[in-house]
Amino acid sequence: MDNQVRSAGDTGGAHPAPVTDEEIFERHEGGKLAVAATRPISDPRDLAIAYTPGVAKVSRAIAEDAAKAKRYTWADRLVVVVSDGTAVLGLGDIGASASLPVMEGKSVLFKTFGGLDSIPLVLDTTDVDEIVETLVRLRPSYGAVNLEDISAPRCFELEDKLKQALDCPVMHDDQHGTAIVTLAALRGANLVLGRDIAAERVVISGAGAAGVACAKILQAAGVADVTVLDSRGIIHGGRDGLNPVKTELARTTNAAGLTGGLAEALDGADVFVGLSGATIDETLLGRMADDAIVFALSNPDPEVHPEVAARYASIVATGRSDFPNQINNVLAFPGVFRGALDAGARAITENMKLAAADAIVAVAQDDLGPDRIVPSALDPRVAIEVAAAVSKAAEADGVTG
Amino acid sequence: MDNQVRSAGDTGGAHPAPVTDEEIFERHEGGKLAVAATRPISDPRDLAIAYTPGVAKVSRAIAEDAAKAKRYTWADRLVVVVSDGTAVLGLGDIGASASLPVMEGKSVLFKTFGGLDSIPLVLDTTDVDEIVETLVRLRPSYGAVNLEDISAPRCFELEDKLKQALDCPVMHDDQHGTAIVTLAALRGANLVLGRDIAAERVVISGAGAAGVACAKILQAAGVADVTVLDSRGIIHGGRDGLNPVKTELARTTNAAGLTGGLAEALDGADVFVGLSGATIDETLLGRMADDAIVFALSNPDPEVHPEVAARYASIVATGRSDFPNQINNVLAFPGVFRGALDAGARAITENMKLAAADAIVAVAQDDLGPDRIVPSALDPRVAIEVAAAVSKAAEADGVTG
Repeated sequence: MDNQVRSAGDTGGAHPAPVTDEEIFERHEGGKLAVAATRPISDPRDLAIAYTPGVAKVSRAIAEDAAKAKRYTWADRLVVVVSDGTAVLGLGDIGASASLPVMEGKSVLFKTFGGLDSIPLVLDTTDVDEIVETLVRLRPSYGAVNLEDISAPRCFELEDKLKQALDCPVMHDDQHGTAIVTLAALRGANLVLGRDIAAERVVISGAGAAGVACAKILQAAGVADVTVLDSRGIIHGGRDGLNPVKTELARTTNAAGLTGGLAEALDGADVFVGLSGATIDETLLGRMADDAIVFALSNPDPEVHPEVAARYASIVATGRSDFPNQINNVLAFPGVFRGALDAGARAITENMKLAAADAIVAVAQDDLGPDRIVPSALDPRVAIEVAAAVSKAAEADGVTG
Repeated sequence: MDNQVRSAGDTGGAHPAPVTDEEIFERHEGGKLAVAATRPISDPRDLAIAYTPGVAKVSRAIAEDAAKAKRYTWADRLVVVVSDGTAVLGLGDIGASASLPVMEGKSVLFKTFGGLDSIPLVLDTTDVDEIVETLVRLRPSYGAVNLEDISAPRCFELEDKLKQALDCPVMHDDQHGTAIVTLAALRGANLVLGRDIAAERVVISGAGAAGVACAKILQAAGVADVTVLDSRGIIHGGRDGLNPVKTELARTTNAAGLTGGLAEALDGADVFVGLSGATIDETLLGRMADDAIVFALSNPDPEVHPEVAARYASIVATGRSDFPNQINNVLAFPGVFRGALDAGARAITENMKLAAADAIVAVAQDDLGPDRIVPSALDPRVAIEVAAAVSKAAEADGVTG
């Protein structure tokens, strides 16, 4: 990134003031979060109610009936945003402390869009079992876990183990948040093009957290032909030395048995989803089918500049707020957790994620266009609709109560 | 407790409405804490500053210079209120979840009186080493640790180990908060009586967290003659089966070598400090010296009713808000932590605690009386003065920066 970040919304002829480093640091001074009392303590009576002796009655009530903790503490609806700082944005393994501004930002977004209280917990360990153990010990303190910026393939093991160990919603947002908004955007793009998602050939570049989760959700949504690439090329059954996650991908994707690199994968493909962090040779996009869809989602630098991609594709999206069609996780996670907690869900199921994607598309449905395949990241209707759809799916899946 | 809690301030002829159970539970509905964004996200520009891409610059800056986390995250001034629920108020070992309303209340008080952000972390383990390990792993997430409602003698070991393991302020409030306010109250009482604290014979009933810490701070403040009792009577060197903490008490207190029970201890004593949770036979107070001072601090039921104690003593105090002279930890902990964090202290030293006690007395100094030996728990000047004194002591002790 250069010294100035183009501000979100800067997509037309108008030129809002660029965001300067000075402004960014000033707005982070002292951190971005604060704790507030839901009711003020302004006289001795307030003190006698909120603290001793009054509070003893509430503690005793919970001791006698554990279910009352849901009603009389904040924990049941508190989301912990958990990171070990091993894969922070595009910055890599920069450690827990340096990841904290991102996690604070995430907590701000949970509050702003989902109306949920949320605190960051960043961990000075990268051992999966130690992270699980820590969250198990803290279980009475929170109601849901948003994993964030944890490196692959550790993130898969961590999420699996946490889901086993905890009786509450757990979601690694880099995987599933990204997958949900990508599916929503692909549905939106297909509505614009009048095409059927099930018949498309989709190529995903990147087999990290986001790439793996995207492949899975697209298949769950009915996409039959998904091919995934890592830094060594197309993932297929004939490759040696694949880790367990990629071995599974080789089994479940690439039915055509393609081998080679991006050129071979993109030959006649309908959709390219970039989640690799690497730039690509634009001419490869010329190999794609007519009316191609290109999602260049790496941040801050897309795999290909969207204006360049537009020469080869009918619909282009990125993860950035300063170009049209921003595919941003904030469209998903506030509503997903809100819906799960509203329903009292013990887990986040595949159907809840699919329902979230459908709800995102539904908000944009009456106003779709090639430059508007998803709602704005700031559209306040999104989290409300996503939450309602996720709650309904949780109930249908029987994971509530 | 009966069904109605007399409200704080209900000390005169006026009769404010009693606090009902209904009101207590209603005021705890949904918990007592919320998280807020320090700056709102209201347009795409805000989002680009607080989240991607802007936040990446802040994370990168911290990765390059760890000290910047102090400035650009909330962690450095965040107090975690930590409990395992083993000694909650007078309710005993009711577990982490049931302790949470107390910890939330504590966080509310940190904010209200100390202006500090604070979150409860309640732990589903009572193993001292596991609690230490958990807080070590979470170290990048917070700036100070307030231990709360952890049973003795585990609390001594836990606090010692945490102080060794962490480079930040750690204080077990049941020990040191109580000790600080008790010392402040004793200084206030002696100012009223025109006596010298150093010449007094002090009897402490109770050798738990609070009793042990009170004995230590009173000795540090110059009281030469301190005798401590546990449920089996006076602690002295001739007793068998003392745990390490009590063995140390036997060595450092009771210079006169008293044996027996409360009757023997109170013979000619100037000060009684009740921290035992047990009621006492009022006639024993008749054995005390003239102008006796009685602090019956057990909650919710004082060792002796203050109106009864007043028959035998010149000055009486309790822990309750509905009698005069309330000795409440809220006079100490918000200012102690605020002062420690303002100074960038790496620890809370004995001198910082003594300075806190002096500052509490100083606030009340111009308005002292037998029914006013400490400031009101709601006096907003207290935390400010305590913080200033604690900061100064931290600098003098060289534990800052």
